[in-house]
Amino acid sequence: MAETKKIAVVGFGNIGSGVVKALYEKGIAGLELVKVIDIDLEKKRPVRLPKKMLSPHWQTVVNDPKIDIIVELIGGTEPAKTILTRAMEKGKDIVTANKMLLAQEGQQLFSLASATGRKIGFRASFVGCHSLIHEFQQAGNAANKFRRIYAILNGTSNYILSTMTHDDKTFKEALKEAQEKGLAESDPSDDIDGTDTANKIRILLNLITNTYHKVPDFQVEGIRNVTPQDIQYAGELGYAIKLVGVIEQIGDAIAVGVHPALMPQTSLLGSLQGAYNGTEFEDEYGVISGLVAPGAGVYPTTDAVIKDLVDIAEGRSVPMPTSAEPLVLGSTEVAERRYYLRFSVDNQSGVLAQICNVFWKYNISIAGVIQKEPVSSKFVPVVMTTYQAREKDIQGAIREVDKLGVVKAATRLIRILSANT
Amino acid sequence: MAETKKIAVVGFGNIGSGVVKALYEKGIAGLELVKVIDIDLEKKRPVRLPKKMLSPHWQTVVNDPKIDIIVELIGGTEPAKTILTRAMEKGKDIVTANKMLLAQEGQQLFSLASATGRKIGFRASFVGCHSLIHEFQQAGNAANKFRRIYAILNGTSNYILSTMTHDDKTFKEALKEAQEKGLAESDPSDDIDGTDTANKIRILLNLITNTYHKVPDFQVEGIRNVTPQDIQYAGELGYAIKLVGVIEQIGDAIAVGVHPALMPQTSLLGSLQGAYNGTEFEDEYGVISGLVAPGAGVYPTTDAVIKDLVDIAEGRSVPMPTSAEPLVLGSTEVAERRYYLRFSVDNQSGVLAQICNVFWKYNISIAGVIQKEPVSSKFVPVVMTTYQAREKDIQGAIREVDKLGVVKAATRLIRILSANT
Repeated sequence: MAETKKIAVVGFGNIGSGVVKALYEKGIAGLELVKVIDIDLEKKRPVRLPKKMLSPHWQTVVNDPKIDIIVELIGGTEPAKTILTRAMEKGKDIVTANKMLLAQEGQQLFSLASATGRKIGFRASFVGCHSLIHEFQQAGNAANKFRRIYAILNGTSNYILSTMTHDDKTFKEALKEAQEKGLAESDPSDDIDGTDTANKIRILLNLITNTYHKVPDFQVEGIRNVTPQDIQYAGELGYAIKLVGVIEQIGDAIAVGVHPALMPQTSLLGSLQGAYNGTEFEDEYGVISGLVAPGAGVYPTTDAVIKDLVDIAEGRSVPMPTSAEPLVLGSTEVAERRYYLRFSVDNQSGVLAQICNVFWKYNISIAGVIQKEPVSSKFVPVVMTTYQAREKDIQGAIREVDKLGVVKAATRLIRILSANT
Repeated sequence: MAETKKIAVVGFGNIGSGVVKALYEKGIAGLELVKVIDIDLEKKRPVRLPKKMLSPHWQTVVNDPKIDIIVELIGGTEPAKTILTRAMEKGKDIVTANKMLLAQEGQQLFSLASATGRKIGFRASFVGCHSLIHEFQQAGNAANKFRRIYAILNGTSNYILSTMTHDDKTFKEALKEAQEKGLAESDPSDDIDGTDTANKIRILLNLITNTYHKVPDFQVEGIRNVTPQDIQYAGELGYAIKLVGVIEQIGDAIAVGVHPALMPQTSLLGSLQGAYNGTEFEDEYGVISGLVAPGAGVYPTTDAVIKDLVDIAEGRSVPMPTSAEPLVLGSTEVAERRYYLRFSVDNQSGVLAQICNVFWKYNISIAGVIQKEPVSSKFVPVVMTTYQAREKDIQGAIREVDKLGVVKAATRLIRILSANT
């Protein structure tokens, strides 16, 4: 049995209370909680600690040579970054749930960890797919490399899209419901604009490529513009609309993006409801594995923190990118995939022919069309799905279609992502 | 970088060829294939090896002190067991895909591994859920223990049930199709009678409980008696019928079984199609994670073997039960769950009342009833679903119902398993 490790928790909020409860009330063999830091020590918490275990000053634990591992649960950039940096410089391992910090400042933190031989446990910034981290990280060594990863990594967005789909709500109504249920912040932009998903994709990419080099910018589109109309058409075609992070091997390059996408209703991700997260991982031979798990919440996050602590205490390796190699992303322009397009056109004859001609010119084959007989409006929606086409060609075709006189509004493009599960 | 490990592969069949191809043609850093053993060296294989690397005698590799790791891919009990035993005695680590052997003889093999400090890599006997092994194994140490595991672990059965459901086939027709596609053996009993699922459940249980003690017998029921009629009724009620391995914490005991079961069509396992495997893992707080992966096949199995080899070569720990503690299973009689029941009754008034009276006596509440107007037969099927009831009570009620004069055939009971994903 290894020696008992002394733990300090910085941040005594919801997650902090969960971790403290597990360590102090329940007790985990090999882990001893010695100090808890928070600027507000008056607030009522679900667990009571002796006064001497509490302090408002993080410096006391960072400078205490008896403490082996610091758990950072305050979030944000500062003082979190300084705490983690100083802790590692002082020879301590760290566990954090701060995905924003790792996505944005991971380069400095992971390089410091490599230089000082320290461990950073960050399962908790990744709750939705931590069981797959071990597999992802191995991809560099073992036989099969990844070809494609589709991931639903934001529970708030998935909850909103599920509600729009099954309860016939608009985006605004579904967002309001999510806010009332405590599933969305009063400022929900990080969730619904794809920022949170993008941060998780950055960390995932660092892990898979085993480099902590800062991930260059990539295209990120949220769900604000997903309409009930598109959800309904997608449903008629057998798809659900999901907010998906995509990591693809295209030739020698890796292309990355976050987009709303149509996924088959019967697929693992297409059928994922509510605040769950999920990942579909396709390897170089086309073999697909998938994982679903709660995206967030006190228990799953607490569990992830404790598992990291146990791994570190028992001397096990923790998945962490270890190289400084630059990370260059390829263009998604040459990605081949299927598309859903909704045109807003004049209700007159010959319109479909004009659109089809443009697509024919760009060598894009049409898989399906829905054009319903108009009810009242002068503008008619025409929905098309294409067979596999290059993103570059589809963008060119849409630019041309949108210049046609009969087209009355910008064409709506949504990617169709299907991993054949 | 660790020293290169010298590998021998015993068994040059489909999986063996996949592993040899990866090691010899593709090449994996840190792993050197030095010998391949098979009794038939004349057969044509997808990979060509120099003659001197081949031998029909497994003794040559077991006794060769230069060989570090032996990969056993011949299956069956003997000589597989002797090879693995001798290899460990000679200080070699082993990797095997032989789930039958580990389920039946794991006690001797794992205790020898513990005694000699050797590793047994057996991801490949577990392809459908190997990413979760790490989590399962940790359950003993970390915060959250499991409450319930539902697992679809046999691709052949799942393929047959999927085909019966979506293509309106009988069990016999679907089995024939699976055999023609090479998805079922000419003697399919191991797959369709639940034996293979039960073996995987045994290994999983050894891992979760961290004891290699032989798992006592438990109830195993296959899919031979699943009828198109039950599949259709289940579908009307929103369920799919699946062959499910169940491990449940009931009080202080663990209860285990393999049964056909109704699972919600929209759940992770209820929506699992074709030859895929899947696992739903519910922890003590009710948090559910799930995993789907291909159940078998050359690439997934090869991949699992290579990953084990890489883990062992790089000195990482391999999930393995390490204690000899006896494993006692609890009774499922006190398990509380919902049930699907199909009664075959006389077409006369008062029948439903008689059945309901029996259920009322046993305190079992009825959730739903389907009784269609009879078409031709004198015997009418009446389908009922119950609310949560104890297995003991439901068995008692059925015994009593089946004695009623109006009941013309044994009542069909199928468990409803729903993890609320």
